[in-house]
Amino acid sequence: MANHDMHREWASKTRGQEDSGHLADSVAEILDCAALCFTEMGFQGTSIDDVARRLGATKGRIYHYFRSKTDLFFEVHREGMRRLMDAVNSAMSQGGTGREKLLHMIEAHALTMMQNTAYEAVVVQGVHMHRLSATTPEQRVSLDELMDIRHRFEQLFVETMREGQADGSVREGADVSLAVKGLLGAVNWMAIWYRPRPDETPEQQQLIARHVAELQVSGIA
Amino acid sequence: MANHDMHREWASKTRGQEDSGHLADSVAEILDCAALCFTEMGFQGTSIDDVARRLGATKGRIYHYFRSKTDLFFEVHREGMRRLMDAVNSAMSQGGTGREKLLHMIEAHALTMMQNTAYEAVVVQGVHMHRLSATTPEQRVSLDELMDIRHRFEQLFVETMREGQADGSVREGADVSLAVKGLLGAVNWMAIWYRPRPDETPEQQQLIARHVAELQVSGIA
Repeated sequence: MANHDMHREWASKTRGQEDSGHLADSVAEILDCAALCFTEMGFQGTSIDDVARRLGATKGRIYHYFRSKTDLFFEVHREGMRRLMDAVNSAMSQGGTGREKLLHMIEAHALTMMQNTAYEAVVVQGVHMHRLSATTPEQRVSLDELMDIRHRFEQLFVETMREGQADGSVREGADVSLAVKGLLGAVNWMAIWYRPRPDETPEQQQLIARHVAELQVSGIA
Repeated sequence: MANHDMHREWASKTRGQEDSGHLADSVAEILDCAALCFTEMGFQGTSIDDVARRLGATKGRIYHYFRSKTDLFFEVHREGMRRLMDAVNSAMSQGGTGREKLLHMIEAHALTMMQNTAYEAVVVQGVHMHRLSATTPEQRVSLDELMDIRHRFEQLFVETMREGQADGSVREGADVSLAVKGLLGAVNWMAIWYRPRPDETPEQQQLIARHVAELQVSGIA
Protein backbone atom coordinates (compact mmCIF):
# COMPACT_ATOMS: atom_id res chain seq x y z
CA MET A 1 0.00 0.00 0.00
CA ALA A 2 1.23 3.48 -0.76
CA ASN A 3 1.83 5.36 2.44
CA HIS A 4 1.19 8.88 1.31
CA ASP A 5 -2.35 8.98 2.55
CA MET A 6 -1.68 6.95 5.65
CA HIS A 7 -2.24 9.75 8.10
CA ARG A 8 -5.53 10.64 6.56
CA GLU A 9 -6.61 7.00 6.24
CA TRP A 10 -5.82 6.27 9.85
CA ALA A 11 -7.52 9.43 10.93
CA SER A 12 -10.69 8.48 9.09
CA LYS A 13 -10.55 4.75 10.03
CA THR A 14 -10.15 5.52 13.68
CA ARG A 15 -12.38 8.57 13.86
CA GLY A 16 -14.37 8.44 16.99
CA GLN A 17 -12.23 5.70 18.45
CA GLU A 18 -10.36 6.31 21.64
CA ASP A 19 -6.91 5.61 20.24
CA SER A 20 -6.98 7.86 17.17
CA GLY A 21 -4.70 10.46 18.74
CA HIS A 22 -2.47 7.72 20.07
CA LEU A 23 -2.08 6.14 16.61
CA ALA A 24 -1.19 9.45 14.97
CA ASP A 25 1.33 10.24 17.74
CA SER A 26 2.89 6.86 17.37
CA VAL A 27 3.46 7.28 13.63
CA ALA A 28 4.71 10.85 14.07
CA GLU A 29 7.23 9.65 16.67
CA ILE A 30 8.50 6.92 14.36
CA LEU A 31 8.86 9.41 11.51
CA ASP A 32 10.73 11.91 13.72
CA CYS A 33 13.23 9.23 14.80
CA ALA A 34 13.59 7.90 11.27
CA ALA A 35 14.22 11.41 9.91
CA LEU A 36 17.07 11.87 12.41
CA CYS A 37 18.59 8.44 11.62
CA PHE A 38 18.46 8.94 7.84
CA THR A 39 19.87 12.46 8.15
CA GLU A 40 22.80 11.35 10.26
CA MET A 41 23.58 8.00 8.63
CA GLY A 42 21.99 8.13 5.19
CA PHE A 43 19.56 5.65 3.65
CA GLN A 44 22.19 2.93 3.17
CA GLY A 45 23.69 3.39 6.63
CA THR A 46 20.38 3.20 8.52
CA SER A 47 18.57 0.03 9.59
CA ILE A 48 15.12 -0.45 11.09
CA ASP A 49 17.06 -1.58 14.20
CA ASP A 50 18.69 1.85 14.43
CA VAL A 51 15.32 3.58 14.29
CA ALA A 52 13.84 1.21 16.88
CA ARG A 53 16.81 1.74 19.22
CA ARG A 54 16.49 5.51 18.95
CA LEU A 55 12.76 5.25 19.53
CA GLY A 56 13.29 2.98 22.55
CA ALA A 57 10.85 0.49 21.01
CA THR A 58 10.83 -2.89 19.30
CA LYS A 59 11.22 -3.36 15.55
CA GLY A 60 7.71 -4.80 15.65
CA ARG A 61 6.25 -1.41 16.50
CA ILE A 62 7.80 0.03 13.34
CA TYR A 63 6.83 -2.92 11.13
CA HIS A 64 3.29 -2.50 12.38
CA TYR A 65 3.10 0.70 10.29
CA PHE A 66 5.87 0.39 7.70
CA ARG A 67 6.58 -2.61 5.49
CA SER A 68 10.26 -1.82 4.95
CA LYS A 69 13.05 0.69 5.42
CA THR A 70 12.25 1.98 1.93
CA ASP A 71 8.63 2.63 2.94
CA LEU A 72 9.77 4.47 6.04
CA PHE A 73 12.29 6.57 4.12
CA PHE A 74 9.73 7.68 1.57
CA GLU A 75 7.12 8.49 4.18
CA VAL A 76 9.68 10.83 5.82
CA HIS A 77 10.34 12.33 2.38
CA ARG A 78 6.59 12.79 1.77
CA GLU A 79 6.16 14.48 5.13
CA GLY A 80 9.09 16.81 4.34
CA MET A 81 7.54 17.74 0.97
CA ARG A 82 4.13 18.20 2.61
CA ARG A 83 5.61 20.75 5.02
CA LEU A 84 7.31 22.62 2.17
CA MET A 85 4.13 22.60 0.07
CA ASP A 86 1.95 23.82 2.95
CA ALA A 87 4.34 26.66 3.81
CA VAL A 88 4.75 27.81 0.20
CA ASN A 89 1.04 27.54 -0.61
CA SER A 90 0.21 29.61 2.42
CA ALA A 91 2.81 32.27 1.46
CA MET A 92 1.41 32.33 -2.08
CA SER A 93 -2.09 33.00 -0.84
CA GLN A 94 -1.00 36.22 0.91
CA GLY A 95 -1.33 37.98 -2.44
CA GLY A 96 0.61 40.95 -3.81
CA THR A 97 2.57 41.37 -7.03
CA GLY A 98 4.36 38.39 -8.56
CA ARG A 99 7.58 39.69 -7.08
CA GLU A 100 6.14 40.10 -3.58
CA LYS A 101 4.61 36.63 -3.69
CA LEU A 102 7.92 35.09 -4.83
CA LEU A 103 9.72 36.82 -1.99
CA HIS A 104 7.27 35.36 0.54
CA MET A 105 7.39 31.92 -1.09
CA ILE A 106 11.20 31.73 -1.06
CA GLU A 107 11.24 32.97 2.52
CA ALA A 108 8.68 30.32 3.52
CA HIS A 109 10.70 27.64 1.70
CA ALA A 110 13.91 28.70 3.47
CA LEU A 111 12.27 28.90 6.89
CA THR A 112 10.73 25.45 6.47
CA MET A 113 14.17 24.05 5.58
CA MET A 114 15.58 25.65 8.74
CA GLN A 115 12.80 24.51 11.06
CA ASN A 116 12.73 20.93 9.77
CA THR A 117 16.39 20.15 9.13
CA ALA A 118 16.03 16.37 9.49
CA TYR A 119 12.94 15.98 7.29
CA GLU A 120 14.32 18.32 4.64
CA ALA A 121 17.72 16.59 4.61
CA VAL A 122 15.83 13.38 3.77
CA VAL A 123 13.95 15.21 1.01
CA VAL A 124 17.29 16.22 -0.52
CA GLN A 125 18.63 12.67 -0.09
CA GLY A 126 15.59 11.37 -1.96
CA VAL A 127 16.19 13.80 -4.81
CA HIS A 128 19.76 12.47 -5.06
CA MET A 129 18.56 8.86 -5.02
CA HIS A 130 16.34 9.67 -7.97
CA ARG A 131 19.46 10.38 -10.01
CA LEU A 132 20.87 6.90 -9.38
CA SER A 133 20.02 3.96 -11.58
CA ALA A 134 20.85 1.44 -8.85
CA THR A 135 17.43 1.65 -7.23
CA THR A 136 14.99 -1.21 -6.75
CA PRO A 137 11.67 -1.26 -8.67
CA GLU A 138 9.89 -0.60 -5.33
CA GLN A 139 12.05 2.49 -4.73
CA ARG A 140 11.55 3.63 -8.31
CA VAL A 141 7.74 3.79 -7.91
CA SER A 142 8.04 5.97 -4.79
CA LEU A 143 10.76 8.11 -6.36
CA ASP A 144 8.67 8.78 -9.45
CA GLU A 145 5.69 9.74 -7.32
CA LEU A 146 7.87 12.07 -5.26
CA MET A 147 9.37 13.65 -8.35
CA ASP A 148 5.81 14.48 -9.43
CA ILE A 149 5.28 16.27 -6.14
CA ARG A 150 8.56 18.17 -6.59
CA HIS A 151 7.52 19.10 -10.12
CA ARG A 152 4.24 20.56 -8.82
CA PHE A 153 6.22 22.41 -6.15
CA GLU A 154 8.51 23.91 -8.80
CA GLN A 155 5.50 24.87 -10.90
CA LEU A 156 4.15 27.08 -8.09
CA PHE A 157 7.27 29.22 -8.45
CA VAL A 158 7.20 29.11 -12.26
CA GLU A 159 3.57 30.31 -12.36
CA THR A 160 4.19 33.07 -9.84
CA MET A 161 7.25 34.28 -11.73
CA ARG A 162 5.19 34.40 -14.94
CA GLU A 163 2.56 36.41 -13.05
CA GLY A 164 5.34 38.78 -12.04
CA GLN A 165 6.47 39.18 -15.64
CA ALA A 166 2.86 39.90 -16.63
CA ASP A 167 2.35 42.52 -13.89
CA GLY A 168 5.78 44.09 -14.54
CA SER A 169 7.29 43.29 -11.12
CA VAL A 170 9.71 40.65 -12.50
CA ARG A 171 12.03 41.47 -15.38
CA GLU A 172 10.98 40.11 -18.75
CA GLY A 173 14.37 38.97 -19.97
CA ALA A 174 14.73 36.25 -17.32
CA ASP A 175 14.39 32.62 -18.42
CA VAL A 176 11.69 31.50 -15.97
CA SER A 177 12.62 27.82 -15.86
CA LEU A 178 16.33 28.54 -15.32
CA ALA A 179 15.60 31.27 -12.77
CA VAL A 180 13.33 29.01 -10.70
CA LYS A 181 15.86 26.16 -10.75
CA GLY A 182 18.49 28.64 -9.55
CA LEU A 183 16.49 30.04 -6.67
CA LEU A 184 15.20 26.65 -5.53
CA GLY A 185 18.78 25.35 -5.68
CA ALA A 186 20.01 28.21 -3.51
CA VAL A 187 17.42 27.31 -0.86
CA ASN A 188 17.69 23.51 -1.17
CA TRP A 189 21.45 23.78 -0.65
CA MET A 190 20.66 25.01 2.89
CA ALA A 191 20.20 21.30 3.70
CA ILE A 192 23.99 21.04 3.29
CA TRP A 193 25.25 24.02 5.27
CA TYR A 194 22.56 25.27 7.62
CA ARG A 195 22.72 24.23 11.30
CA PRO A 196 20.78 26.24 13.87
CA ARG A 197 23.05 27.91 16.41
CA PRO A 198 22.36 26.65 19.96
CA ASP A 199 20.87 29.98 21.04
CA GLU A 200 19.19 30.90 17.73
CA THR A 201 15.73 32.44 18.16
CA PRO A 202 12.80 32.04 15.77
CA GLU A 203 13.17 35.76 14.99
CA GLN A 204 16.79 35.26 13.91
CA GLN A 205 15.76 32.32 11.73
CA GLN A 206 13.11 34.50 10.13
CA LEU A 207 15.73 37.18 9.38
CA ILE A 208 18.05 34.64 7.73
CA ALA A 209 15.17 33.25 5.64
CA ARG A 210 14.15 36.75 4.57
CA HIS A 211 17.70 37.67 3.60
CA VAL A 212 18.09 34.46 1.57
CA ALA A 213 14.87 35.35 -0.27
CA GLU A 214 15.87 38.99 -0.84
CA LEU A 215 19.22 37.94 -2.30
CA GLN A 216 17.47 35.65 -4.77
CA VAL A 217 14.94 38.28 -5.78
CA SER A 218 17.19 41.36 -5.88
CA GLY A 219 20.65 39.85 -6.44
CA ILE A 220 23.82 41.08 -4.80
CA ALA A 221 24.50 44.10 -6.97
CA MET B 1 49.46 7.11 0.45
CA ALA B 2 47.35 10.16 -0.25
CA ASN B 3 46.35 10.24 -3.87
CA HIS B 4 46.00 13.95 -4.39
CA ASP B 5 49.48 14.43 -5.82
CA MET B 6 49.53 11.16 -7.73
CA HIS B 7 49.40 12.70 -11.18
CA ARG B 8 52.29 14.99 -10.40
CA GLU B 9 54.26 12.22 -8.69
CA TRP B 10 53.85 9.88 -11.62
CA ALA B 11 54.70 12.59 -14.05
CA SER B 12 57.93 13.35 -12.21
CA LYS B 13 58.82 9.71 -11.49
CA THR B 14 58.42 8.70 -15.09
CA ARG B 15 59.76 11.85 -16.70
CA GLY B 16 61.92 10.90 -19.66
CA GLN B 17 60.55 7.35 -19.64
CA GLU B 18 58.71 6.11 -22.68
CA ASP B 19 55.52 5.20 -20.81
CA SER B 20 54.93 8.44 -18.91
CA GLY B 21 52.11 9.51 -21.21
CA HIS B 22 50.71 6.00 -21.10
CA LEU B 23 50.62 5.99 -17.30
CA ALA B 24 48.81 9.32 -17.09
CA ASP B 25 46.32 8.18 -19.77
CA SER B 26 45.71 5.00 -17.87
CA VAL B 27 44.85 6.82 -14.64
CA ALA B 28 42.71 9.37 -16.46
CA GLU B 29 40.75 6.56 -18.14
CA ILE B 30 40.14 4.83 -14.81
CA LEU B 31 38.95 8.12 -13.27
CA ASP B 32 36.61 8.82 -16.20
CA CYS B 33 35.00 5.38 -15.89
CA ALA B 34 34.80 5.63 -12.11
CA ALA B 35 33.16 9.07 -12.34
CA LEU B 36 30.45 7.63 -14.60
CA CYS B 37 29.85 4.60 -12.35
CA PHE B 38 29.61 6.66 -9.15
CA THR B 39 27.34 9.19 -10.84
CA GLU B 40 24.95 6.53 -12.09
CA MET B 41 25.00 4.12 -9.15
CA GLY B 42 26.31 6.15 -6.21
CA PHE B 43 29.20 5.31 -3.90
CA GLN B 44 27.37 2.46 -2.15
CA GLY B 45 26.04 0.99 -5.39
CA THR B 46 29.38 0.90 -7.22
CA SER B 47 32.05 -1.81 -6.93
CA ILE B 48 35.60 -1.91 -8.31
CA ASP B 49 34.23 -4.74 -10.51
CA ASP B 50 31.74 -2.31 -12.08
CA VAL B 51 34.49 0.17 -12.89
CA ALA B 52 36.74 -2.58 -14.34
CA ARG B 53 33.89 -3.93 -16.48
CA ARG B 54 33.13 -0.47 -17.86
CA LEU B 55 36.83 0.07 -18.51
CA GLY B 56 37.14 -3.31 -20.25
CA ALA B 57 40.06 -4.15 -17.95
CA THR B 58 40.87 -6.36 -14.95
CA LYS B 59 40.41 -5.29 -11.34
CA GLY B 60 44.19 -5.62 -11.06
CA ARG B 61 44.71 -2.65 -13.32
CA ILE B 62 42.64 -0.48 -10.99
CA TYR B 63 44.23 -1.81 -7.79
CA HIS B 64 47.61 -1.03 -9.34
CA TYR B 65 46.77 2.66 -8.84
CA PHE B 66 44.05 2.75 -6.17
CA ARG B 67 44.04 0.92 -2.85
CA SER B 68 40.27 0.83 -2.49
CA LYS B 69 36.93 2.05 -3.80
CA THR B 70 37.13 4.86 -1.25
CA ASP B 71 40.50 5.97 -2.66
CA LEU B 72 39.09 5.93 -6.17
CA PHE B 73 35.97 7.88 -5.17
CA PHE B 74 37.96 10.61 -3.49
CA GLU B 75 40.42 10.91 -6.36
CA VAL B 76 37.43 11.54 -8.68
CA HIS B 77 36.17 14.12 -6.17
CA ARG B 78 39.63 15.80 -6.04
CA GLU B 79 39.77 15.94 -9.83
CA GLY B 80 36.27 17.51 -9.93
CA MET B 81 37.31 20.15 -7.38
CA ARG B 82 40.57 20.79 -9.26
CA ARG B 83 38.58 21.56 -12.43
CA LEU B 84 36.28 23.93 -10.53
CA MET B 85 39.21 25.66 -8.83
CA ASP B 86 41.13 26.07 -12.09
CA ALA B 87 38.13 27.52 -13.92
CA VAL B 88 37.20 29.94 -11.12
CA ASN B 89 40.79 31.06 -10.50
CA SER B 90 41.21 31.78 -14.18
CA ALA B 91 37.94 33.78 -14.28
CA MET B 92 39.05 35.72 -11.19
CA SER B 93 42.32 36.72 -12.82
CA GLN B 94 40.46 38.45 -15.68
CA GLY B 95 40.12 41.48 -13.42
CA GLY B 96 37.37 44.10 -13.35
CA THR B 97 35.17 45.30 -10.49
CA GLY B 98 34.20 42.89 -7.74
CA ARG B 99 30.82 42.53 -9.40
CA GLU B 100 32.30 41.77 -12.84
CA LYS B 101 34.69 39.23 -11.37
CA LEU B 102 31.88 37.52 -9.46
CA LEU B 103 29.85 37.31 -12.66
CA HIS B 104 32.75 35.62 -14.47
CA MET B 105 33.48 33.32 -11.54
CA ILE B 106 29.87 32.11 -11.23
CA GLU B 107 29.71 31.65 -15.00
CA ALA B 108 32.96 29.62 -14.93
CA HIS B 109 31.62 27.54 -12.05
CA ALA B 110 28.37 26.84 -13.89
CA LEU B 111 30.10 26.00 -17.17
CA THR B 112 32.48 23.60 -15.41
CA MET B 113 29.48 21.86 -13.80
CA MET B 114 27.90 21.51 -17.26
CA GLN B 115 31.03 20.28 -19.02
CA ASN B 116 32.00 17.76 -16.34
CA THR B 117 28.66 16.38 -15.21
CA ALA B 118 30.04 13.05 -13.94
CA TYR B 119 32.99 14.48 -11.98
CA GLU B 120 30.84 17.25 -10.50
CA ALA B 121 28.04 14.86 -9.53
CA VAL B 122 30.68 12.95 -7.54
CA VAL B 123 31.83 16.21 -5.93
CA VAL B 124 28.25 16.83 -4.77
CA GLN B 125 27.94 13.21 -3.57
CA GLY B 126 31.12 13.73 -1.52
CA VAL B 127 29.70 16.86 0.06
CA HIS B 128 26.62 14.86 1.05
CA MET B 129 28.75 12.04 2.48
CA HIS B 130 30.48 14.60 4.66
CA ARG B 131 27.18 15.23 6.41
CA LEU B 132 26.80 11.59 7.40
CA SER B 133 28.28 10.21 10.58
CA ALA B 134 28.34 6.64 9.22
CA THR B 135 31.67 7.07 7.45
CA THR B 136 34.82 5.04 8.09
CA PRO B 137 37.90 6.72 9.66
CA GLU B 138 39.63 6.36 6.25
CA GLN B 139 36.76 8.18 4.52
CA ARG B 140 36.70 10.84 7.24
CA VAL B 141 40.34 11.82 6.58
CA SER B 142 39.66 12.31 2.86
CA LEU B 143 36.37 14.08 3.53
CA ASP B 144 38.01 16.53 5.92
CA GLU B 145 40.75 17.26 3.38
CA LEU B 146 38.14 17.83 0.67
CA MET B 147 36.07 20.10 2.89
CA ASP B 148 39.22 22.23 3.31
CA ILE B 149 39.43 22.53 -0.48
CA ARG B 150 35.75 23.50 -0.65
CA HIS B 151 36.27 26.06 2.07
CA ARG B 152 39.12 27.66 0.07
CA PHE B 153 36.87 27.59 -3.00
CA GLU B 154 34.09 29.38 -1.12
CA GLN B 155 36.60 31.93 0.22
CA LEU B 156 37.46 33.00 -3.35
CA PHE B 157 33.86 34.14 -3.74
CA VAL B 158 33.72 35.71 -0.26
CA GLU B 159 36.88 37.77 -0.91
CA THR B 160 35.69 38.89 -4.32
CA MET B 161 32.31 39.91 -2.95
CA ARG B 162 34.05 41.95 -0.22
CA GLU B 163 36.15 43.59 -2.95
CA GLY B 164 32.90 44.45 -4.71
CA GLN B 165 31.49 46.01 -1.54
CA ALA B 166 34.70 48.06 -1.16
CA ASP B 167 34.63 49.28 -4.79
CA GLY B 168 30.88 49.98 -4.66
CA SER B 169 29.85 47.43 -7.31
CA VAL B 170 28.16 45.09 -4.79
CA ARG B 171 25.54 46.40 -2.39
CA GLU B 172 26.71 46.92 1.16
CA GLY B 173 23.69 45.55 2.95
CA ALA B 174 24.23 41.99 1.73
CA ASP B 175 25.49 39.40 4.25
CA VAL B 176 28.53 38.12 2.35
CA SER B 177 28.65 34.64 3.86
CA LEU B 178 24.92 34.04 3.30
CA ALA B 179 25.03 35.50 -0.22
CA VAL B 180 27.96 33.28 -1.25
CA LYS B 181 26.30 30.17 0.16
CA GLY B 182 23.19 31.08 -1.82
CA LEU B 183 24.90 31.60 -5.14
CA LEU B 184 27.13 28.55 -4.80
CA GLY B 185 24.04 26.51 -3.90
CA ALA B 186 22.20 27.72 -6.98
CA VAL B 187 25.10 26.52 -9.17
CA ASN B 188 25.84 23.32 -7.24
CA TRP B 189 22.21 22.31 -7.59
CA MET B 190 22.82 22.06 -11.36
CA ALA B 191 24.34 18.64 -10.56
CA ILE B 192 20.73 17.58 -9.85
CA TRP B 193 18.83 18.97 -12.81
CA TYR B 194 21.22 19.78 -15.63
CA ARG B 195 21.56 17.28 -18.49
CA PRO B 196 23.05 18.45 -21.82
CA ARG B 197 20.58 18.19 -24.69
CA PRO B 198 21.82 15.78 -27.38
CA ASP B 199 22.43 18.59 -29.86
CA GLU B 200 23.56 21.23 -27.39
CA THR B 201 26.48 23.32 -28.64
CA PRO B 202 29.29 24.80 -26.48
CA GLU B 203 27.87 28.25 -27.35
CA GLN B 204 24.47 27.28 -25.94
CA GLN B 205 26.11 25.94 -22.78
CA GLN B 206 27.97 29.22 -22.41
CA LEU B 207 24.68 31.14 -22.71
CA ILE B 208 23.05 29.04 -20.01
CA ALA B 209 26.06 29.50 -17.71
CA ARG B 210 26.02 33.27 -18.29
CA HIS B 211 22.29 33.50 -17.58
CA VAL B 212 22.67 31.49 -14.37
CA ALA B 213 25.40 33.92 -13.28
CA GLU B 214 23.42 37.02 -14.24
CA LEU B 215 20.39 35.83 -12.28
CA GLN B 216 22.54 35.38 -9.17
CA VAL B 217 24.20 38.77 -9.54
CA SER B 218 21.20 40.85 -10.61
CA GLY B 219 18.26 38.85 -9.26
CA ILE B 220 14.98 38.36 -11.05
CA ALA B 221 13.38 41.69 -10.33
